[in-house]
Amino acid sequence: MDIIYVTGNKGKIELAKMIYQDLDVNIIQENMETPEIQSMDCVDVAKFSAEYAANLLGKPVMKNDSGLVIEALNGFPGALAKYAEDTITAEGFIRLMQGVENRKCYWVEALAYCEPNHEPVCFVSLSYGTISKSVRGNRGYDYDKIFIPDGDSRTFAEMTEEEQLKCFDTKAYKDLYKYLLTH
Amino acid sequence: MDIIYVTGNKGKIELAKMIYQDLDVNIIQENMETPEIQSMDCVDVAKFSAEYAANLLGKPVMKNDSGLVIEALNGFPGALAKYAEDTITAEGFIRLMQGVENRKCYWVEALAYCEPNHEPVCFVSLSYGTISKSVRGNRGYDYDKIFIPDGDSRTFAEMTEEEQLKCFDTKAYKDLYKYLLTH
Repeated sequence: MDIIYVTGNKGKIELAKMIYQDLDVNIIQENMETPEIQSMDCVDVAKFSAEYAANLLGKPVMKNDSGLVIEALNGFPGALAKYAEDTITAEGFIRLMQGVENRKCYWVEALAYCEPNHEPVCFVSLSYGTISKSVRGNRGYDYDKIFIPDGDSRTFAEMTEEEQLKCFDTKAYKDLYKYLLTH
Repeated sequence: MDIIYVTGNKGKIELAKMIYQDLDVNIIQENMETPEIQSMDCVDVAKFSAEYAANLLGKPVMKNDSGLVIEALNGFPGALAKYAEDTITAEGFIRLMQGVENRKCYWVEALAYCEPNHEPVCFVSLSYGTISKSVRGNRGYDYDKIFIPDGDSRTFAEMTEEEQLKCFDTKAYKDLYKYLLTH
């Protein structure tokens, strides 16, 4: 089956192709801009953008949104992760979490799928971890330097990219595939 | 002149009426939900919502968006102020600013105006201040407890509401009025 994936990010396309490599899925990139709504919930953000793109293109599309949920910060930054990263940076998160015992957090990946003039559906992957006590490692984004996935003692930035990718839950992709087989 | 103000917030309506009380402006509340786009820039957020509302209602409308810009945090939280307040709270900002010398910040109020099928215009008020070194005062929102307006040594939360209102710049409202007189 063909799935049109709305994103300007080549890394996202490659990741989807890798996850779907053993299934009869053909990922087609659609590089269009979509408005993102203000919400801390990746599901709301992905659904809105998917519906917008599906209605504009007149085709069914997939759209992702991802974010970081930190329990002790009441879910901050959530879907607003990129803005927080660009401004307060990894160091800001270490300050916010100084002396905080509960360091639990998770990455959210929301995959929304929408057909034109239909309600969007959405599937979610959660990858659990903890926030490190200092900024560690040199590779990747700011969050990679403070996120320690469950089952490891290293931050993502202290792993290779391959090791990091294996830590991410891919449930959302598989659930979307199952949904498409039965609809 | 009549101005339709899209907001569900009665406080915003009262504020606009108070600012416009000596001018021939009649503020009419339109209590509709509009999508807010993800951006740290209040101007972008207000413009998008105003355009959406104007096209849906088929009438010219005014829409506001406000936020807090902290220099040392690279503009954070900007238009995302309400999400940051709900999650990291005033205490989180004090942590983020611990030991930071440059405490300059400003409130932004963006007032967008849009006619159906036209580009929105936007006018901006900036109210300057500094971030306090601790959470101070009991009244108002979280930001009121950490924002010291220039020319005073108290946080907003240590003033009366009347004193606080006098500290806000109202340039955007006056600029919008002038615009409407000449268009």
